Amino acid sequence: MYRCVNVGMLGCGNVGATFSEFLLSRAPEIQEINGIDLRLTRIAVRDAGKKRPGMLAPLITEDVQAVTQADDVDVVVEVMGGIEPARTYVLAALRAGKPVVTANKELIAKCGPELYAAADATGVDLFFETAAVASVPILRILRESFLGEDITSVLGIVNGTSNYMLTRMSEEGLSYSEALSLAQEEGYAEPDPSNDVNGADSASKLAILASLAFKRAIAVDDVEREGIETLEREDFDIAARFGYVIKSIAKADVFEAVGSGKREIGIQVFPALVDKNHALANVRNTYNAVFLRGSAAGDQMFYGHGAGRLPSASALLGDLVTAADHLRRATHRVVPLGSAAVLRSTERLVHPHYLKLEVIDAPGVLSEVSGVLGRHGVSIRSITQEDHASKARVVFITHRAEEGAMKKAVEELRGLESVLGVSSMLRIVEM
Amino acid sequence: MYRCVNVGMLGCGNVGATFSEFLLSRAPEIQEINGIDLRLTRIAVRDAGKKRPGMLAPLITEDVQAVTQADDVDVVVEVMGGIEPARTYVLAALRAGKPVVTANKELIAKCGPELYAAADATGVDLFFETAAVASVPILRILRESFLGEDITSVLGIVNGTSNYMLTRMSEEGLSYSEALSLAQEEGYAEPDPSNDVNGADSASKLAILASLAFKRAIAVDDVEREGIETLEREDFDIAARFGYVIKSIAKADVFEAVGSGKREIGIQVFPALVDKNHALANVRNTYNAVFLRGSAAGDQMFYGHGAGRLPSASALLGDLVTAADHLRRATHRVVPLGSAAVLRSTERLVHPHYLKLEVIDAPGVLSEVSGVLGRHGVSIRSITQEDHASKARVVFITHRAEEGAMKKAVEELRGLESVLGVSSMLRIVEM
Repeated sequence: MYRCVNVGMLGCGNVGATFSEFLLSRAPEIQEINGIDLRLTRIAVRDAGKKRPGMLAPLITEDVQAVTQADDVDVVVEVMGGIEPARTYVLAALRAGKPVVTANKELIAKCGPELYAAADATGVDLFFETAAVASVPILRILRESFLGEDITSVLGIVNGTSNYMLTRMSEEGLSYSEALSLAQEEGYAEPDPSNDVNGADSASKLAILASLAFKRAIAVDDVEREGIETLEREDFDIAARFGYVIKSIAKADVFEAVGSGKREIGIQVFPALVDKNHALANVRNTYNAVFLRGSAAGDQMFYGHGAGRLPSASALLGDLVTAADHLRRATHRVVPLGSAAVLRSTERLVHPHYLKLEVIDAPGVLSEVSGVLGRHGVSIRSITQEDHASKARVVFITHRAEEGAMKKAVEELRGLESVLGVSSMLRIVEM
Repeated sequence: MYRCVNVGMLGCGNVGATFSEFLLSRAPEIQEINGIDLRLTRIAVRDAGKKRPGMLAPLITEDVQAVTQADDVDVVVEVMGGIEPARTYVLAALRAGKPVVTANKELIAKCGPELYAAADATGVDLFFETAAVASVPILRILRESFLGEDITSVLGIVNGTSNYMLTRMSEEGLSYSEALSLAQEEGYAEPDPSNDVNGADSASKLAILASLAFKRAIAVDDVEREGIETLEREDFDIAARFGYVIKSIAKADVFEAVGSGKREIGIQVFPALVDKNHALANVRNTYNAVFLRGSAAGDQMFYGHGAGRLPSASALLGDLVTAADHLRRATHRVVPLGSAAVLRSTERLVHPHYLKLEVIDAPGVLSEVSGVLGRHGVSIRSITQEDHASKARVVFITHRAEEGAMKKAVEELRGLESVLGVSSMLRIVEM
């Protein structure tokens, strides 16, 4: 009924090899149900000499243009990763009128608007469902379903590696380095885990999620981030006593600016305390979840595997079938982005805070410390104090306060003779 | 840039009135971001004399053809409800080449394949996102994102009214009739609550969800259902002691038939015990959630408001914007359904069961009862017995057993002189 659709791939690492096998195994049912005959034609790689699964060997080439420009390639699947040369190749394919399906979240988070414009200029699709919460088609929902909805908040756990580590630290009392070693043993963390633990990976995903949710261009560099590297084991215990778990949270909100009525966006990634009864508190191990708040639709949550070869392969294939279907209908989907986002400085973002101090154990110290917080407009919701020989550890849970005020208060606290150290300051997520 | 898109409505009840106001309020931003100028042109109603909001009054007509056939209507939104005359009108609109967006789950659950075929014949869209878990765009996900995925199970809480009642019965110890009165006071249950409490509403939604998930035509009459009307307050307490909550569950699974390798579908709605640590156990009040299990994507959950005027209006508008966008691109989306579903008889579906009996308090009774279960191949996971004067109440939690075997065992138990009654038999959901 329809001609076959020739698929060219850029890259053939772990995700690529799994994807190509998955494509071959699912192709007959896709043809039966959707009437689309997908054929893997060519795979461009850097080193054609490397060993590959036997059935892929005849497709391998080092000639990138044989994928991005060739007449016998209809759709391009990019699974190389990294910014360059992936950006150049993807742009070449889009400009040659070939729809592109990519698993490359760094590329989309950094160069999204440039690529969206290139795709729209030649009227082809650019899909990247795998880029955030791989197994859950949340990007399509944001791009296509919530067109009539005003989404005001995005709150998520979007990095499986760090969530696995925090789950182990919380449930088994592991230290950060023990949890990291375990994650590496289990294959959840790479030998260099930096991007997973420092929040960079979550920031890329959040930039993509928030730009689609709020329909404004937001780049990864707009996202302020803090990693989980400095979390201490005892913070998990103390948080639990207050009824919280600690999670690495990706959070973006729309605010109406007072006076102008203009909208500002606050966007951050940070480790935070989450109420143990909140649905996100129960997102454990390598699972991911995204909470959305819409003006009309209310609260929603989407939950699933954040990564993994098979979930990624499945998401890539879903995108590929859609791109192939659009091709035969001579249509495509644009990414709807309005005017550029206006960001709200993180100094002005408000949260309750968890603040842990070591102080000398002497009369009047608590009053001095509370006085500093009060002068910066930070009011206290609860306090616990524990004495250890000549010093004491004080933990405050504050009411909502601006981050700028908190930072100034902490700076002043550090200057007090009675304060030996401010060992933790964590935000508390309320939503 | 693009011409305006004229929208005609069929019906103007609660959902319709809210939708039309929502459309008018969101239209400017939709034009800015998506470049689509939506204009509400005409609303066909049965009784034009009825009072309506002032701004809608000039649009009202009793002439249905002025919506379904008129040249100045581009897209039709059907919010009448019921099978006829909605079916006739929707078919007329589709045959006249007009895309249709409908909120009518009964119509889709009963006449889906007929309507899908009519839409495809003239190459127009038929969207019905509001029909299951209104606020969560799960139908689009199933229709469009999981094209490469093999979904094997759907498990959901898809009726807000019954879930609200069960939450009150579970958390506040209300009886069924107290919970129903409360739900009616709060406006969550209609004066005639039959379809919400007897499982009919859930069955419609499950038929739609499962047919899109499994890509097979499944009609609402294929869904065997049990309501929540006969649940007893004490079952909630007993279930809690075993670590379960009671929920109204919509469940559909794909099985490989032994020998033939052909696939069969089991599909049911029933009140069931759910492990209190399962994510569905924490779906409270009027919220809905759907769990999916995919061969590659793994487990996923989608959570949000199941009904309500604003969530429904938002979902209708999302569909409408997509339909309008497809119209200007001269494309449409089909519902991909393969060959007809082969159903597995519920007699052959297996679950653990919760079984509550009243027996005479005499030696040997427990052994007699267990013997009957054993003869039907039902093995016991745990038992509790409580004595009340001359009789005793025995609760069994069984291992997985076929429903047919359970029914035969219960029939035989009812015939025993020592068994005064079998007061509850509930399935336990494991997934």
